[in-house]
Formats: sequence, C-alpha cells, structure tokens
Amino acid sequence: MNLTHPIIGIIGAGAVGCYYGGRLAQHGKNVHLLLRREFDRVSQNGLHVKSADGDFDLYPPALRVYHRAGDMPRCDLVIVTLKTTANEFYQPLITPLLKDDTVILTLQNGLGNEDQLAQLFGADRTLGGMAFVCINRLADGTILHSDHGLIKIGEYRGPITPRLRQIAELFNSSGLKCLAIDDLLRGRWEKLIWNIPFNGLGALLGLTTDKLVNNAHGLALVRNIMEDVLRIAASCGIIFPPEIIDEKINQTLSMGSYKTSSQVDMEHFRPIEICAIFGNAMVMGRSHGVVTPYLTMLYNQLGLVRRATLT
Amino acid sequence: MNLTHPIIGIIGAGAVGCYYGGRLAQHGKNVHLLLRREFDRVSQNGLHVKSADGDFDLYPPALRVYHRAGDMPRCDLVIVTLKTTANEFYQPLITPLLKDDTVILTLQNGLGNEDQLAQLFGADRTLGGMAFVCINRLADGTILHSDHGLIKIGEYRGPITPRLRQIAELFNSSGLKCLAIDDLLRGRWEKLIWNIPFNGLGALLGLTTDKLVNNAHGLALVRNIMEDVLRIAASCGIIFPPEIIDEKINQTLSMGSYKTSSQVDMEHFRPIEICAIFGNAMVMGRSHGVVTPYLTMLYNQLGLVRRATLT
Repeated sequence: MNLTHPIIGIIGAGAVGCYYGGRLAQHGKNVHLLLRREFDRVSQNGLHVKSADGDFDLYPPALRVYHRAGDMPRCDLVIVTLKTTANEFYQPLITPLLKDDTVILTLQNGLGNEDQLAQLFGADRTLGGMAFVCINRLADGTILHSDHGLIKIGEYRGPITPRLRQIAELFNSSGLKCLAIDDLLRGRWEKLIWNIPFNGLGALLGLTTDKLVNNAHGLALVRNIMEDVLRIAASCGIIFPPEIIDEKINQTLSMGSYKTSSQVDMEHFRPIEICAIFGNAMVMGRSHGVVTPYLTMLYNQLGLVRRATLT
Repeated sequence: MNLTHPIIGIIGAGAVGCYYGGRLAQHGKNVHLLLRREFDRVSQNGLHVKSADGDFDLYPPALRVYHRAGDMPRCDLVIVTLKTTANEFYQPLITPLLKDDTVILTLQNGLGNEDQLAQLFGADRTLGGMAFVCINRLADGTILHSDHGLIKIGEYRGPITPRLRQIAELFNSSGLKCLAIDDLLRGRWEKLIWNIPFNGLGALLGLTTDKLVNNAHGLALVRNIMEDVLRIAASCGIIFPPEIIDEKINQTLSMGSYKTSSQVDMEHFRPIEICAIFGNAMVMGRSHGVVTPYLTMLYNQLGLVRRATLT
C-alpha cells in the first residue's frame, strides 16, 4: 500500500468528487476520475471549478477521466463519492480498482455506506469521511464551491491510525483541510444533524437553506427535526450537547443561500438519498424505541412526493 | 324572523356559496348572493353548476347577485361562506344585512368562526355548520360539485332548536341534504379530522386526495396527523372512536381525485386558511398541554411555504 504517492481512484465524480478529485490533481496527485453523466463534457472541455479557495481549471491528459471502471488502473486509495442511491453499483464499480491492500474511503452522505463497503470488500480497508462543504454543479458543468470545505475522516472501526493520518495529509497538502478523527460514527451523526433538516426540508419545500433559518416557522421545523436526530444519536451512545443545534443554525446563517444536493435532485426529478440520509437514521431510532415524529413525517413526506413525481 | 319564506343572504359566494346559494335559488328560495371576484362574470353570464346531483344554470334576474353588501336587502338568514382569511370583513359585510332577529349561519371551515360572529353580532343569533362536500370552481367559472354534499348544522351553544330544524328543512327542500345536530363543536372537530391532513398535505405537497391515500407514506402521514387532531379534540372533551380514522380514509378512497380548497389556494398563490383549519386547533391543543408534533410540523411547513411564496 503506497499512501505517500498513491494512485487515487475517484468513483462517482459528481460535484463533490470533481471538486476533491480536481484539487488533488491540481496539486500533482495521481488522480483517476470515473464520470458517468459528465464524462463527455469533462473529457472534451475539461473541469472548471469556481471556488471560495481559488478557481482552477484542469484539462485532459493532466486530468485523467474514465467512463468505465474497467478502464481504470488498480488504485492505492479509492475515494467513493457516488450518490448513495447508486450504492447497488459498489461491486462492479469498485472491484476493478482493487489491489489486495487498496484502502476505500467513502465521502458519501448519511448512514450505512461504510457498513455496505465493509461487507463487500472487508472492514479492514474501509474508511469513511464527511465533507462539510457547499458544492454544486452549475448548468454549464462548472463546479461551484461556495463555502466551507473541511473533511473529517475516520477508520470504519476504531481510532486514528497512521494510514488515516497519511490520507489526511494527502488532502491537506492539496489545499483541502482534512482532519483525522477518532470516532467516525460521531462524525456521521454530526453531519446528519445538519443534513436531515436542511436536505429534507429544502428538497420537500423547494427552499434554499437561508429560507429555512430566517423565520420562526423554519427555525421551529429545523430545531424539532434536529432534536429528533439528537435523540437517535443518543440512543446509539453518541451524545451531543444541546447547544450544537444553535451552532449548526449559526453556521447555516453564515452560509447565505445554499441549495442542498437533495433540493437539486428534487428539482431535476432525480432520486433523493432518502435511505442514507433519512431512512437509516429513522430505522435506527425505531429499533432503539426512540420516538421521532418530525423525522418520521419528513421521511414519509419525501417518500410520498418522490412517489408522486414518479407516477 | 321568517324562516318559512326567508330572505337569504349569502356572504362570500366562492365555490361553496355559489353551489348552496344556487341550489336554494333553483328551488325557489329568495336568495341574494354577494360576489367579489366573480361578480362581473356571474352577473353577465349567469351561474353554471355541474353537479353529481344534477346540473343547473341560473341567470339574472332570477339569480340576484351583488357586488356591495350595502346594496343587499335586510335578510332573515345570512349564510356566511367567506374564506376565513377574510373574517376581518365580517362587520362591514354582514352588518348591512341584519334585522333585529336575523339569524347568521357560518358554513366556513375550521375553528373560531362562530366565536367571532357571536362576539360581533350576538351568540343568540349565531349558528354554524359543516359542508361535507367536494366543490371546486373551474377555470371558466363553472362550479363543479363532484361528490358528497351533506350539511350538518348546529346552534352555537346548545342542542337542536325549532329554528335550526326550519333551516335544515330549507336545505332539504332544495335538494341539499342537511342534518340538524345537537353538538356543533363535535361536528367541527369531525370535519377537522379530515380537513387538517387533506387540506394541509394537499396544499403543501401539491397532491390531490387520492395521492394521499393510495400509498403507505401518504397513509402514515394522514393517520399520524389525524391522531394528533383526535387527541386535541379529546382534550376538549370531544371523544371520537379510533375507528373514525379508517372511516375517513375509506370515504376519501371513494372520492376519487379531489383537490381541496387549500391546494387550489396554494396553486393560485392565494392565502390558505391556516388559522381556522390548522392554527386554532394547534393552539387549542397547546393550551391543554397536548403534544401534537405532526400537526405542529404541518402548520410550520405551511407557514414557511406561505411566507416563501410572498417574499
């Protein structure tokens, strides 16, 4: 396993994968991007990133893009940025990239991704991380990185390891702030405290984040949902101080008008990450006997609207 | 007070007022309709009703329509079918129609209308009623009465009186099924059990009633909200058997695809009856210490979306 000069495969290069992959490539890392919808555009016109941390453009062959996983090299590090609605493709997309000691890092949203990866490819090589970042793809294909950007990464099971520090250093040496953490699951829940209300209400009601925190109705909804999430996390032994709700709301106020990926998905009639972001948390709460009316209502509303747009 | 051959004023002739007023006029009753948005159209082209109980058309002068309450005659019976968002106009619209013994019957949605009327004009002359009916106005102004139609009316305070029976007979002799009931408030809550989930979710999610009962997500939402409403009613001493939830859902299944007035309002960026249908019930529950997360979330979501469409 070479994590000093690793061959890095990025699986599922949506907005997040393109941004992180692009930054790594920009800083001379050996990056290979698997693209699907955007393959033609990026392979012909390059990757264009407008970023709060500095714009950049990358063109083939400096940027190595692929349309089929089978055409990619075996990697030392596979970073998974698929939408979780495509997790059923883990096996065909990741298997061709694996060596015996390849490490797999998922930066996907929500709960359950590491579990699925561990089951398919082994717990020992599974890592997870959360990207606390505002990234969208614009209509012309440009990636817009509008705010934040901290990545927190952790071992699937257990505290920080040397390899985890090496991967954090890969990001940090590429202009991407990355923190190795001892408790991945706590990080997952911390991100969900934000994602569940803002992705959920944003998608359901077609509202950017600012519209959810600049009035009493929105704040009541966000708070109620966050309280449900905190109770589920607590039932898993992960206790957050109640002040985290105000912290998350204050961070959101500072973000301006942001459209979550789920709102973008809803607008384009694409699948929303209902299971990973909402459903798995709700089921977890239910299995621990936690009553979560606000999350449950949000989950059912998203399911209902999703169904209605498909039929 | 002449309730055998009464002069009847209909205040706020939207779809419901036009339908009931039209039926009464069709059967020879002395009906005077106050119209606002539709005055020009109806006074020029008449009133056209497509009804599950038989179509009919009425033209001036057989149909007496007014644009100003001050032009209307003093009435024996005033039927109020205003949208509750216009209740602030009770005084200027109703006062010109009143004699000493005029009876006022509100067929409006939700809670609090009789209280407001009683406060302004006296509890003794206040009656209330619920129209369990599917009525919409089509784009060309035609009134579409698609299903049901039972009216239940009651005294503001107390059991059935002779005058209440006379008014019920007015409706019944005009092809409109009307039942005098002993407990108006119970009737109000019975209607809210349906209106709160179906008007609320329909408006919020842009879904007709059929889309809310033909799948598990929708049914879970409807049931959860109905359970909240039943708990508030119970805290007011009005107990419904739990089976009423299945009854209401089965009635809805038989209605086909119906668009509630609140959904229509939302589509046209018109005010939704948030206070009368949702807010007053929620506040009532809160004042009795009842926890109603689903109703509260629905209320906040409607308030949020309403706010977002206005700003």
